Parts: sequence; structure tokens; C-alpha cells
Amino acid sequence: MLEELKEEVCKANKALVTHGLVVLTWGNVSGIDRDKSLFAIKPSGVPYDELQACDIVLVDLDGKVAEGKLKPSSDEPTHRELYKAFAAIGGITHTHSRCATAFAQAGREIPPLGTTHADHFHGAVPLARVLTEGEVEADYEANTGKVIVERFEAIDPMAVPGVLATGHGPFTWGRDAGDSVKNSVALEEVAHIALLSLQIDPECQELPAYMQDRHFYRKHGPDATYGQ
Amino acid sequence: MLEELKEEVCKANKALVTHGLVVLTWGNVSGIDRDKSLFAIKPSGVPYDELQACDIVLVDLDGKVAEGKLKPSSDEPTHRELYKAFAAIGGITHTHSRCATAFAQAGREIPPLGTTHADHFHGAVPLARVLTEGEVEADYEANTGKVIVERFEAIDPMAVPGVLATGHGPFTWGRDAGDSVKNSVALEEVAHIALLSLQIDPECQELPAYMQDRHFYRKHGPDATYGQ
Amino acid sequence: MLEELKEEVCKANKALVTHGLVVLTWGNVSGIDRDKSLFAIKPSGVPYDELQACDIVLVDLDGKVAEGKLKPSSDEPTHRELYKAFAAIGGITHTHSRCATAFAQAGREIPPLGTTHADHFHGAVPLARVLTEGEVEADYEANTGKVIVERFEAIDPMAVPGVLATGHGPFTWGRDAGDSVKNSVALEEVAHIALLSLQIDPECQELPAYMQDRHFYRKHGPDATYGQ
Amino acid sequence: MLEELKEEVCKANKALVTHGLVVLTWGNVSGIDRDKSLFAIKPSGVPYDELQACDIVLVDLDGKVAEGKLKPSSDEPTHRELYKAFAAIGGITHTHSRCATAFAQAGREIPPLGTTHADHFHGAVPLARVLTEGEVEADYEANTGKVIVERFEAIDPMAVPGVLATGHGPFTWGRDAGDSVKNSVALEEVAHIALLSLQIDPECQELPAYMQDRHFYRKHGPDATYGQ
Repeated sequence: MLEELKEEVCKANKALVTHGLVVLTWGNVSGIDRDKSLFAIKPSGVPYDELQACDIVLVDLDGKVAEGKLKPSSDEPTHRELYKAFAAIGGITHTHSRCATAFAQAGREIPPLGTTHADHFHGAVPLARVLTEGEVEADYEANTGKVIVERFEAIDPMAVPGVLATGHGPFTWGRDAGDSVKNSVALEEVAHIALLSLQIDPECQELPAYMQDRHFYRKHGPDATYGQ
Repeated sequence: MLEELKEEVCKANKALVTHGLVVLTWGNVSGIDRDKSLFAIKPSGVPYDELQACDIVLVDLDGKVAEGKLKPSSDEPTHRELYKAFAAIGGITHTHSRCATAFAQAGREIPPLGTTHADHFHGAVPLARVLTEGEVEADYEANTGKVIVERFEAIDPMAVPGVLATGHGPFTWGRDAGDSVKNSVALEEVAHIALLSLQIDPECQELPAYMQDRHFYRKHGPDATYGQ
Repeated sequence: MLEELKEEVCKANKALVTHGLVVLTWGNVSGIDRDKSLFAIKPSGVPYDELQACDIVLVDLDGKVAEGKLKPSSDEPTHRELYKAFAAIGGITHTHSRCATAFAQAGREIPPLGTTHADHFHGAVPLARVLTEGEVEADYEANTGKVIVERFEAIDPMAVPGVLATGHGPFTWGRDAGDSVKNSVALEEVAHIALLSLQIDPECQELPAYMQDRHFYRKHGPDATYGQ
Repeated sequence: MLEELKEEVCKANKALVTHGLVVLTWGNVSGIDRDKSLFAIKPSGVPYDELQACDIVLVDLDGKVAEGKLKPSSDEPTHRELYKAFAAIGGITHTHSRCATAFAQAGREIPPLGTTHADHFHGAVPLARVLTEGEVEADYEANTGKVIVERFEAIDPMAVPGVLATGHGPFTWGRDAGDSVKNSVALEEVAHIALLSLQIDPECQELPAYMQDRHFYRKHGPDATYGQ
């Protein structure tokens, strides 16, 4: 079932290694087929170099495994909450990439300090709040998704395609699995440059809003001119 | 037309990846044929590993595409302004390399702290000022070039072959496309070492002028002794 | 003798290079056969790319070489003390990986700042105290192991599979040689992210205990759900 | 002439790239034949990947080229001064490796903060003073060597096989060309870890002298036990 989607999700998971976003098995990518309401996700704990398309697990939006012999990623309920709430997204990536995770651990949003940021994220990369003890005990992974959705109440997820889960790390999304990985690459690079900028000047200012808009809309929306 | 130039520019763009100066499609290199007044530049948004010489776009100094089926880089007007103002340069590189971009975001020039810097840049790597809202709305990419030219009013661009666009990132230039990439490598390395030096000692002093001169003129000008 | 164990230990030593945990010959891995009370360890000063399974030295728990023409790693007595004291461990890795060593040199434990840490270490990564002059003169390498054991008096070594020797660097352990290397990878990554987190916010707080528990027990113990 | 030495020096220069110690052509290695009083050194400005043994230049201790069609490295007079003053050394490496150069630019010695340092350098890695304007004008490269020798008046160069030239970068030496490169690898790693340690704790203390001695003499001198 959905062989093409599974191939694409398998390839996107392996790309995490190529881009230096993961060590060991610390990340997972999924992609959804909106017509069938099924998403394809990495199985739990399987090394990237052993991963094959036939290992990818298909899950429905109630969390039931529709196909696959392996257990899905333990973060599957988080992906599910995001797919349910953000209708426009087609793929999700979760990593523990260093600089983005450092901002998440420090409990700081990533401020829009330059055009590199503005090309990919329209405004700061927000923080989802830390979960309460009850939320962790009840349904931890689903609640991780719910506090992200809560944080995006007034934010368009396609204009800000990523978030930091406080004390945890980044989630990004995109049009499809591969696009969500590209947004993880962008997020880590933006976080790295922000961290260095703040070392040079702890009072480093945000890019003026008119510059942010110019760069964001050059790459996104109906008036985008970037690319072919 | 200009097959050799297109080959050279194609190769120089791919070298950005080899040197670790770009992720995704975040950089572009061009080279100019001064006799024909045409410059060859990377097409917009094309991944480096797919790039072929036949994809390189030829543009004249009025911004008209002279050859090529693809759209030129969105930074093409910036390159054009620099070619028009700096008669001695034959190639231009733009990246978002981490440490140089961090100085650009922090709005700090890169001070000449050591001989590594002085071997390549005669004096601080300057900052071009941030654009006004009007300049961004009117003709953003051309104005990005114009404020660089404005900043070099009293600086010889061949003695300081690079600049930081405030809030954006570095541009470098050189005798040809390949030479401009080498100057981007040098700039990022110099920025990285400066950043680390300032971490060790925030009051780190500039190299004495007589040392800067000794190193710069060992590699540049009529009395250069470096190389074969 | 114990050909399979020697192959495994040889491969685990070479993995230190793949994971970027060592330069030159700055690290060593061992693995134990509990039935035979023999452990297999890297020979001293042999480059990883020349290392063969037949070079691996077998040592008994009194420090006598049971098989092998080469001298064991100079850290052999440290490994031996840990095998004697920690009955549950099957492999040990010692490196001078950068960020973990920086915490060891600074004499700081690695605080549990996020879920990346909690997935692998249940609580702070502790510091073993600096040795006295007498302890260094008497039997330095064995005493390095003894102060680690002293530090773990009230800590389960399988819940915190690593330590920092003050002024020296990290030791990690695991179910077998390969597992101890994975814990070194995790330790260095956790140390790196902690270092960056503290740069962003020097007052960065520990992850709430209920979050630490949730992540640690998701991957460890009878109720673990992670993996297949 | 001295084909074996030229092969060894060629290989040692290429190893600078493998170990990540250089970009572009920013480093050079030499090796000496003490019987013939000739040293073999990299030619100036030649890329490492094009370098062949037959390109290596042979120079005598008066600076006269004894063999070779290419010009020697511009740092040749510095190497020569060190060979003349330090009778025990057989090879020299000069790089602009990042962290060691950052300490040189900041004008700070690298303090012996841990056993990684003590394994390779017996005490702090010293700073050679900045040259006066007169020393730069007269015979810059030879004087760079002379201030290093001046700094080692009371230091055994085989116990501290490296130095930082203030505002410039590191020089290391060893038994032969390859050994001097290993000491450059060690120096950069030690500098990197020191820099991170000082970020974690700006008041980070030196390793007790008895620990430094234990580690240094484990690897050096008549009682060394490390290696085979």
C-alpha cells in the first residue's frame, strides 16, 4: 500500500544523516496521504542505514497501524496531532539537532536576526510550553503535539514551518516529507547562526520587519519569485 | 556562447558545497566576460549537484538575459551593480556562511586580528549599511549592491575583496569566479577565528599595522613574493 | 580464544573514528566475557586503521595478559576496576571527546537539561574526584577506576552509563563493547548541546524530574517501549 | 637527492588536509636530514592535492636552494631558524588551525587544563612575542623563528613541541615531518578543548602538576610505557 509514499519517507529519513541532523537513531520523518488519511512513519529504533521502504509503518489518524510489521516511532502520536490540526502540511520531521535543541533546552525562541531566517520562517521560531506532570503522565506524546498546536493558535504553520518543544527539541513540517527535512536543515542552520550572532553581540537586534517580509515573500506565497 | 566561462562558473558554484559554505541552495557565484559585457550566473533555486554548465544564465549589464532557459539567481541585480562599479573584478560569490553571516547579523565589521586576516583582507572586512524601507520596496537586490558600492567609496575593492551586508551575509569577489570562491573560503575562516579570538578575549586587539602590511603585500601587488 | 569478542571489540574501537570521538590514538574500547572472566581490550598506541582482531589483547581480572603479543592500553587497569565493581556491564569506552572532556576539565557535572540527556542518562553525568598525589604515584590507572566506583556508591551504573574523570575525560559503559561506544556518542552529543544551552542561557534550568523519568523509562527498564 | 625524505614531507603536507588543519594553501611541513644539513619543504602556494614529491624543495641551513625548480614556502626562513636552534627536532609544521590561531590572536598561552594537554605538552603552550616594526622590516620570516627560539631559552623544545606566534598562529615540531604533523593535530585539539573549558568556567584551573607529570612521562622519556 502507498509504495511511493513509503519510498519517499524512507529516503527522507536517510537524508537526516546526510545533512548531519542526527546521531544514532535520534530522529524521525513522516509523510501523509491526505486522500487515504494514512501517514507513513519511521519504525522505532531502526538504524538509518538498515532502513528500507518496506519497514516504513502506515498509521491512520486514530493511531491504528494500517500496515507494517514493526512498531512506529515512539513520537508517532505527536506527528498524528500535527497532521490532524494542520491541514496544509504533508510531512513532519523531528530531530535533536544541536543548536535548535540548545535553544529548546534554554527555553528561548529563535529570534529573526537575519535574512537567512526570514527566507524560511516568517517571524521567530516559537517555543511550545513545557508539559505539566499530568500531561506527561496521561498521554505524553500526543500532548507534545497538542501544546504545539496550542502555540500555533495565532500562527500560520506554513509561514512558520517549525517549532521548539521546550526542554526537548525541534519539529518541522512542510509540503511533504522531503520538504519537512529541508525545513529542519534550515532551522538548524538558522539556530546555529543565531547562536553565534548572540555570542558576538548579546544585544543583537531583530531584522527590520520590512526586510523580513521582503525575504519571506520572495520565496513564499503568490508573489514568490525565487526558483524556477 | 561563452562555453568556457559557463563551465568555470558552474564548477565554482559546485565548489561552494565542497568548501562547506552552503546548505540547500543558499549561495551563488558569477563570472564576467568584460569584452562582451556579459556575466554568467547560477540559475535560481537549482541544487548544486544537478547544476550543469548549460544551466548557467548569461546576463548583460542592463539585466537582460542574453542566453539561458532558466531564471538567473534572485541576487543577480546585486552582482550586476558590483560588476558595474568595480571594474577590476571578474567574479562574485554570495553565501550565507555561518560565521561571516553571524558578524553581518550582529552588525559588526570583522576586525583584522591576525595574519590570517591580513593575508587576504587589507583592513577590517566592512559592513554595508542596512537598507531603508524605501530602498527595499523600490529595487531591493540592486540597492543591496548600491550600498556595498557606497561603502567602498574610499576602499580599493581588490585590497578588501569582500563585504558584509548588514542583517544578511557576505559577498566576496576576485579576479574570476574561482578566485571569488577562494575569498569566500578565506572570509569564513577569518570570521570563524575572529569569533573564537573574541571569545577568549573580548578586548582582543587588532594586529599592528606594520604586520598587516607585511602580510598583505607578501601576497598582493607588484612586490608579492608568495606563490610561484 | 574468544575470537568473536575480539572481532566485536576491534570493530567497536574503529567505530570511535567513524563517530568522530577520537583523533590520533586517543581512545580505547574493551568488552568482557563474564563466564571466562576475561576482557578484550585495544593494544596501546596502535592506530585504528591498522587495528586487527588478532591485535586485541585478552586480560584477566587480576591484570594478567591471557592472550596477545601486544601490550594492552595503558588505561587497562581502569577498565579492570570498573568490570570488577559493576557486575552488569559488558563493555567500556574511554575517549577524550571534546565537549565531554571540556566539562571534565572545568570540573562540572553535565546537568540534565533536556530529553536528549534523559533518554540516555538518568540524572546528571557525575564527576569522579581528582586523584591525590599519593593515588597518582601509587597505582594511577587503577585508582582512576576506584574513584569512579567511589562516585557511583549511590548510583546505578546502568541508569547512568558514564562518568567524567576530573581533569581527564569521559568513560562510558554498556551491555557490550558496541553499546558502550553508543553511550560515548550520546554523552558527547549531550555535552555539546548542554554547552550550547549554557551559552544561550547561563542560568539554564534542569528538565523537570517527571519529564526526565518519562524519557528515561521509555528507553530503559521493564516498561521500555522504544525500539522493536 | 633525498628521495625518501621528499616523499615523507610530501605525504606529511597532504596529511594537513586529512586532519582538517588547513584550508586553501595555508600551511606547510618540512623535514630535515641532519647528516646532509638539508631540509625538504613545501613549495610556496602549491595546492595540496597537486603536490608531488618532486615538487618538494631542498634547502640548506644558509637558505640556499640545493634542489628544486619551485620557490620554497615563504615561511622557509622560520623553519631554518628552528632547525639551527633546536638540534633534536627533525620536522616542523606550520598551520593556521582555528583554535590554536585564536589563542595566538588573543595573545594567550594555552594553559594545561587536562590530561589531553599533558599527554603532549609538558606545561603551557607558550606565546612568542609580537615582532617590532624593525624586526618585521629587516627579515620578517627569520625573525619569526628567532623570537620563538628566544621564548624557548628555558624550555626544552622536545618537552613542549609547539608554540603560538602572537597575532599569527601555531608552529609545532617533532622527531620527523610526520611527528610534527601529529603534534599539530594534538595542539589544535588541546586548544579546542581549552577554549570550550574556559567557556564553561572562565576560572578553570590548571591540572595539578603531579597529574601533568604522570601523563607526560607516560608517553615521553626513558620511563615511557605508552605504545608498543
